[in-house]
Amino acid sequence: MDAAEPTEGAAWDEVTPDAARRLLIAAVEAFAEQGYHATTTRDIAGRAGMSPAALYIHYKTKEELLHRISRLGHEKAVRILQAAADAEGSAAERLARAVRSFVVWHAEHHTTARVVQYELDALGPEHRAEVVDLRRQCDAAVRRILLDGVRDGEFDVPDVPGTTLAVMSLCIDVARWFNAAGRRTPDEVGVLYADLVNRMVRSGA
Amino acid sequence: MDAAEPTEGAAWDEVTPDAARRLLIAAVEAFAEQGYHATTTRDIAGRAGMSPAALYIHYKTKEELLHRISRLGHEKAVRILQAAADAEGSAAERLARAVRSFVVWHAEHHTTARVVQYELDALGPEHRAEVVDLRRQCDAAVRRILLDGVRDGEFDVPDVPGTTLAVMSLCIDVARWFNAAGRRTPDEVGVLYADLVNRMVRSGA
Repeated sequence: MDAAEPTEGAAWDEVTPDAARRLLIAAVEAFAEQGYHATTTRDIAGRAGMSPAALYIHYKTKEELLHRISRLGHEKAVRILQAAADAEGSAAERLARAVRSFVVWHAEHHTTARVVQYELDALGPEHRAEVVDLRRQCDAAVRRILLDGVRDGEFDVPDVPGTTLAVMSLCIDVARWFNAAGRRTPDEVGVLYADLVNRMVRSGA
Repeated sequence: MDAAEPTEGAAWDEVTPDAARRLLIAAVEAFAEQGYHATTTRDIAGRAGMSPAALYIHYKTKEELLHRISRLGHEKAVRILQAAADAEGSAAERLARAVRSFVVWHAEHHTTARVVQYELDALGPEHRAEVVDLRRQCDAAVRRILLDGVRDGEFDVPDVPGTTLAVMSLCIDVARWFNAAGRRTPDEVGVLYADLVNRMVRSGA
């Protein structure tokens, strides 16, 4: 995997102090390159230019770093999708906004998103339960838009839970294949995917 | 991640002798649980009930095991998608067959598929190039069906490469979220996804 791209840092602006933020960014890079299990807290401290003792001031365990990364990533996802679900406009407009902004996030922060998605099983039981709850909130926001569209006759969706799952999956998998050096910008992928998802659900075909 | 499910072994029937097959299955399980970089050839030999010396008779390096797993997985994907592209019937029927069978494979072999998808960067340059070529063959089969459908007026696809990418991505990501203990069987997911993809591309909406 490529290293965290320049924009990746922007995901962590809310983390303070600066040393705690640098350690989180170093942890994302190390987990993405080597996997969670092959990474030591010493590796992470070294990448951040700090001593292991300095790391322990901010994070007691490697799992605490993963949990912090995963929670911040999922909280951001909830905010993006709930903002789209709560917005003004038709269900089609709200769905397009949800897909476009969720895709852009996964493309711009693909290194973080891969760690968040592929290392879920490394979280402890309580932290995992917390993240599963945030994921349910993401699903609920998308499902709400689909149900509104069905109610208003805009959408024809025979299987709302299955279609919610497919829409989320399509957006999340952008993190796997997106290449910052590739032909499409994050927003171009977002626009394409918003159109494809609209075609999946619109009625009158 | 859960361990390789009972059906997982069926993917490796073509691998002989028996010891080489057992080692591949053990490697899939170990890579899925710990990640490639945290797994040693000693771990893999131990899971297969063999000595490290016995492993080296069949595989010289850990990367050779990953390469074998990745190549077999990708060769199977090429066969599935080319069979659908070459089949009789309308473009819509061939696309439904491609999506349904590709999804079923990713659901049934989700542990293998996760290893294949998430550890691509651990392959050496030559092996990686070989796998990239197989992936191009997969894309080409799906693209061929889309182009046939556009030519015959069955499909309306403004962006054929982008839609090909989205269809592949939707199917591949089934390996990430599919849970053998969940509510949907592999074939139920395949049928749902074939319908969603058909809606994405059909003309006349």
